[in-house]
Amino acid sequence: MIIVLKPDTTEKQREHVLDYIKDFGLKAHVSEGAYRTVIGLIGDESVLQSVPLEALPGVESVMPILKPFKLASREFHAEDKIVFARGVPIGGPHVAIMAGPCAVETREYLDVIARAVKAAGAAILRGGAFKPRSSPYSFQGLGEEGLKMLRETGDALDMPVVTEVMDTRQVDTVARYADILQVGARNMQNFDLLREVGKAGKPVLLKRGLSATIEEFLLSAEYILSEGNPNVILCERGIRTFENSTRNTFDVSAVPNIQSECHLPVVVDPSHAAGRRDLVVPLARAGIAAGAAGVLVDVHCEPEKAKCDGPQALLPPAFADMVRELGLIANVVGRSIVRGPVQDSKSRSVPKHPTRAPKPAE
Amino acid sequence: MIIVLKPDTTEKQREHVLDYIKDFGLKAHVSEGAYRTVIGLIGDESVLQSVPLEALPGVESVMPILKPFKLASREFHAEDKIVFARGVPIGGPHVAIMAGPCAVETREYLDVIARAVKAAGAAILRGGAFKPRSSPYSFQGLGEEGLKMLRETGDALDMPVVTEVMDTRQVDTVARYADILQVGARNMQNFDLLREVGKAGKPVLLKRGLSATIEEFLLSAEYILSEGNPNVILCERGIRTFENSTRNTFDVSAVPNIQSECHLPVVVDPSHAAGRRDLVVPLARAGIAAGAAGVLVDVHCEPEKAKCDGPQALLPPAFADMVRELGLIANVVGRSIVRGPVQDSKSRSVPKHPTRAPKPAE
Amino acid sequence: MIIVLKPDTTEKQREHVLDYIKDFGLKAHVSEGAYRTVIGLIGDESVLQSVPLEALPGVESVMPILKPFKLASREFHAEDKIVFARGVPIGGPHVAIMAGPCAVETREYLDVIARAVKAAGAAILRGGAFKPRSSPYSFQGLGEEGLKMLRETGDALDMPVVTEVMDTRQVDTVARYADILQVGARNMQNFDLLREVGKAGKPVLLKRGLSATIEEFLLSAEYILSEGNPNVILCERGIRTFENSTRNTFDVSAVPNIQSECHLPVVVDPSHAAGRRDLVVPLARAGIAAGAAGVLVDVHCEPEKAKCDGPQALLPPAFADMVRELGLIANVVGRSIVRGPVQDSKSRSVPKHPTRAPKPAE
Amino acid sequence: MIIVLKPDTTEKQREHVLDYIKDFGLKAHVSEGAYRTVIGLIGDESVLQSVPLEALPGVESVMPILKPFKLASREFHAEDKIVFARGVPIGGPHVAIMAGPCAVETREYLDVIARAVKAAGAAILRGGAFKPRSSPYSFQGLGEEGLKMLRETGDALDMPVVTEVMDTRQVDTVARYADILQVGARNMQNFDLLREVGKAGKPVLLKRGLSATIEEFLLSAEYILSEGNPNVILCERGIRTFENSTRNTFDVSAVPNIQSECHLPVVVDPSHAAGRRDLVVPLARAGIAAGAAGVLVDVHCEPEKAKCDGPQALLPPAFADMVRELGLIANVVGRSIVRGPVQDSKSRSVPKHPTRAPKPAE
Repeated sequence: MIIVLKPDTTEKQREHVLDYIKDFGLKAHVSEGAYRTVIGLIGDESVLQSVPLEALPGVESVMPILKPFKLASREFHAEDKIVFARGVPIGGPHVAIMAGPCAVETREYLDVIARAVKAAGAAILRGGAFKPRSSPYSFQGLGEEGLKMLRETGDALDMPVVTEVMDTRQVDTVARYADILQVGARNMQNFDLLREVGKAGKPVLLKRGLSATIEEFLLSAEYILSEGNPNVILCERGIRTFENSTRNTFDVSAVPNIQSECHLPVVVDPSHAAGRRDLVVPLARAGIAAGAAGVLVDVHCEPEKAKCDGPQALLPPAFADMVRELGLIANVVGRSIVRGPVQDSKSRSVPKHPTRAPKPAE
Repeated sequence: MIIVLKPDTTEKQREHVLDYIKDFGLKAHVSEGAYRTVIGLIGDESVLQSVPLEALPGVESVMPILKPFKLASREFHAEDKIVFARGVPIGGPHVAIMAGPCAVETREYLDVIARAVKAAGAAILRGGAFKPRSSPYSFQGLGEEGLKMLRETGDALDMPVVTEVMDTRQVDTVARYADILQVGARNMQNFDLLREVGKAGKPVLLKRGLSATIEEFLLSAEYILSEGNPNVILCERGIRTFENSTRNTFDVSAVPNIQSECHLPVVVDPSHAAGRRDLVVPLARAGIAAGAAGVLVDVHCEPEKAKCDGPQALLPPAFADMVRELGLIANVVGRSIVRGPVQDSKSRSVPKHPTRAPKPAE
Repeated sequence: MIIVLKPDTTEKQREHVLDYIKDFGLKAHVSEGAYRTVIGLIGDESVLQSVPLEALPGVESVMPILKPFKLASREFHAEDKIVFARGVPIGGPHVAIMAGPCAVETREYLDVIARAVKAAGAAILRGGAFKPRSSPYSFQGLGEEGLKMLRETGDALDMPVVTEVMDTRQVDTVARYADILQVGARNMQNFDLLREVGKAGKPVLLKRGLSATIEEFLLSAEYILSEGNPNVILCERGIRTFENSTRNTFDVSAVPNIQSECHLPVVVDPSHAAGRRDLVVPLARAGIAAGAAGVLVDVHCEPEKAKCDGPQALLPPAFADMVRELGLIANVVGRSIVRGPVQDSKSRSVPKHPTRAPKPAE
Repeated sequence: MIIVLKPDTTEKQREHVLDYIKDFGLKAHVSEGAYRTVIGLIGDESVLQSVPLEALPGVESVMPILKPFKLASREFHAEDKIVFARGVPIGGPHVAIMAGPCAVETREYLDVIARAVKAAGAAILRGGAFKPRSSPYSFQGLGEEGLKMLRETGDALDMPVVTEVMDTRQVDTVARYADILQVGARNMQNFDLLREVGKAGKPVLLKRGLSATIEEFLLSAEYILSEGNPNVILCERGIRTFENSTRNTFDVSAVPNIQSECHLPVVVDPSHAAGRRDLVVPLARAGIAAGAAGVLVDVHCEPEKAKCDGPQALLPPAFADMVRELGLIANVVGRSIVRGPVQDSKSRSVPKHPTRAPKPAE
């Protein structure tokens, strides 16, 4: 950590800063510059994470040298993490397609849609039973009834299922039915929920908050990891910006950006990013081209009857065309689409992936 | 609701749209324009809130005419709402100062700080026992122990207390100790929590999410109101923007903007908006000048020892100066600072406040 | 255009609105809804573009039905536009790679870099002679001397050149040397400059402003088009958001979003979007996968000696690897990289490209 | 400046970094930390402003210690700057009201409006003759004819006039008529224009760009100051955010934030920030309460006939009420509204203003 002192700091204030630091067992390294005095701290700066250094008289600014997350970092775990959901790998060389209706509505719709996405190449079935809705008057999901339908359909088609959990009190119930617990964007900083899913013993798909920085996103993953659950999948699903012709702005750079400092797999959700059906396919292609470990896509056989997000759902034929294109693009970046469970699910980690980031000959 | 059709819509698609609308009991009013066909819907458009009209073939765009919230609107409740916390009014002509440490740390600190803010003119005591922290490694609050201290200090000084609740499982506990339940910015769209605090029978202070639009903010208030709790206080506390020299950007326009369509009192939190002590006082003044019904301010007697947000805490003397200035500004806009409980707490509503918005002679 | 009246509008105010509209030669179509009166205007609403309808007493809101741009729209020109620069096509099935140093520095550097990018597959040479810099103390470019070097190098290698023009007074000079005039992000709404480049008789590469909506971006293109210059290339180069680990946020959705309503080719600049070398290649791949008509990339043989944006410049070997990958991805979306001038540069327009947007079977 | 090396940096890379720095005449101060090596540079770091340190192999990040602007800083000029326009002071204890129509339209309108704002307490007349408009089809202003009207009206009422200049080629013309040259938000980084107005010998009112950070804003002021013109007035007029119920988000914190590091006066433009008449007055009050040195307000006697921004123009009676309120609030923060030219315009600088920023007793 670097502490910069104000130009008019008194000798007494300076001594106070140095004493303050010493109390935390850190060594100070003082540089008297031409315009400012700079104090470098040597030792484990994580002890200062909650300490209000900026509140000390005479301090102009404080700059951390280390990232505030640890278990989520490449320094802690260098290789790409591969998360397995009922044997289906996500991460490393494996690209997983997760598709299904936004919300579970009826057994019939779910069955038709699930068969279609499975046939087209999806490995994992998605569908919401508890739906976070901006308005209290919108459809809120079928609850446990929806979870049952999802489980049965997943079992019938041998597809692991991913579904959202919104409340700490639902975690046990959802974990009984789902193979992957999804934490939605609006709950990315619901810290009690993060802790509970960290304890639930199932992989977690954590969506990025609408205005979360990459650092905050990884700190939320850290909450889950620090409960002993290493199976976290990160999902970029669009951020809030001034642009209003799309629902959110799909931050495709989050994929390589996160991968450069974090070992967890990153998937993308172009459906919720765009909110418009006509942009879903190009954004899915962009995500895979940027190195994503998977896509999460809303598909519906009758979008105009969908109870949630119909305008962004792909029809099955468009979805099938998309999966074909994604397979070709995945190959360009040295990966391939996984169609179902793999035999050897023991090796939960593989060497750093070669296409992860450009390594210019330095 | 207005539906705009694409220029190349077929006759069949058009008929399909009209049939679809009719099924919801609405009348359609078709205008054939020079470039587009526009369909106006007559009837209660709230039945279409969850309906995917954009997913219908031939539809270019859909524009709602009515706001999606109802109980929060001025159309439902024209006069300014006054919320009472143990007899202390917030809203209408009353400006309430809520102050205290960011987190409850020790009984001693709390006592010193509470006495200081009371003496300076604060009517309500704030302090966090459950703290939402970006990092799992930061101080997370004292929990129920902190709630007890807060209650005892509030009782000793005859100050109602406001404190945050983060998890549906904590609502009963927090409601036993607190006079106002605070829902933090990160939980503004934790819909299960909104429902639970709506049922808890205590006033709720709802903070605006970091990237929440005014409409989303009012829809979250609607969740609470729709559980039968009319005592909601809204709090502007800064939004996420590109500007990085402050922690957030204080959206002072939210105050008159919300007041123009919603009857609930709006307070401001300049401490969390700025994240920097030197900006707290000017922003508090700006909030009151814009018509806020109160301010929520972090105060600490030893900021450098604070376990949370020390760099933004005011020292008691600066706080006292600020309250004096706020009183003068409140008078300019026809209001005054409330010092404690008022006798007549029966009239929970007053006529629309004259300074609410400029009414140019039209 | 749709005008929504406030619920408490008087009969007199309503009549005033109707009279006001009639004066512009438009017909009004009044719908009395359950909660609001809505007035639809029939006729050419473009006559109302500058008219302050919201200022009329009784008006709650005004919603335009038509986009405010015309010449830039697909309704005006349905097919993909192909722009030719010295015979090199950009748009339609042709993907053009534009590469070179951020700034022209010395003849030697320029020569080495230009040969390298040409060998790797770039069709167009980029390089700045007039540099817009945030600080007055940064390197401002070589001016006309730089333009000369760029022209000579372009001629020697048979590569058209693109370079920025910043000031209306420089347009003639820059147009003498360059094949494509670049208008930078900071000048996207320098309207006098847009008009001048519209008159200069050369293709224009217009970069999106850091906080420009798609609609504003297309209105700026409209300024150029309305001067009689149909050869406009649009460039997405990142927008300003709260995320601060990249210089800007690369809005890859802008590519299909613009293409859905505008016929002009859209290229991407991943170098300036990211500001970090390690993200350039994945973002370039994402852009082409999303349907971009080209990429603009900073390349330097000695980034640590670059006078401008060295940290984002690719080294020639990494650039060559990238071009190979981009070629494969372009093929997946039905396009191919153009290596140089094509014979038949007469047909300036081609049928709508099939991969432009997903067309789900409706 | 602080350079942080990557954990896996080789000895050779490290030596290369140290040699590189030495070439610029700076001394390096190396701290070997537990996790990172940190290099502090001692000497005049401004020589490194354009140097691509991040491009050096082994460098993880670079942190500047000093602000990149100099002439705009409090370190260069500690006292509040007072700018005089024809004897009317702006800054220090003086609050100036600048009002008038958004655009000069006719001599009659201008005359009526100017008399009204003068009577209500405005000291400076505003009005646009060259109008930057998003669409090429909107009213673009009367040009020199409008400048003449503005000058004549200003002279008749003894009011200095402020008007926008958009193009380097217009600077001489505008400077002949205007007392203050306005550079609009869209031209905040039109660097050639900044240089020209820096040479024109008249005070400049520089508006903050829609997505400009405070640092970029001050660097743009630095362009003007570095041409020898010390008379720069900064104007906050709203920034681009996700919130779409106002045209822009009024960043009131910019006022004290800028004042904490820059000596130039800061005024606010609530009209363009909000784009809605009903918010102008509360935002103006907020600006003055936060310490602004003035307000810039659109006023029109017949907003529905205005050719530009009618929906945000105040009517004269509402304006007069507002000025009265602003006077009272200015008094609370130790300032007062200036009604016209002052005698002693020699002292162009006064001691640091006491209400500038809260100074908690440390």
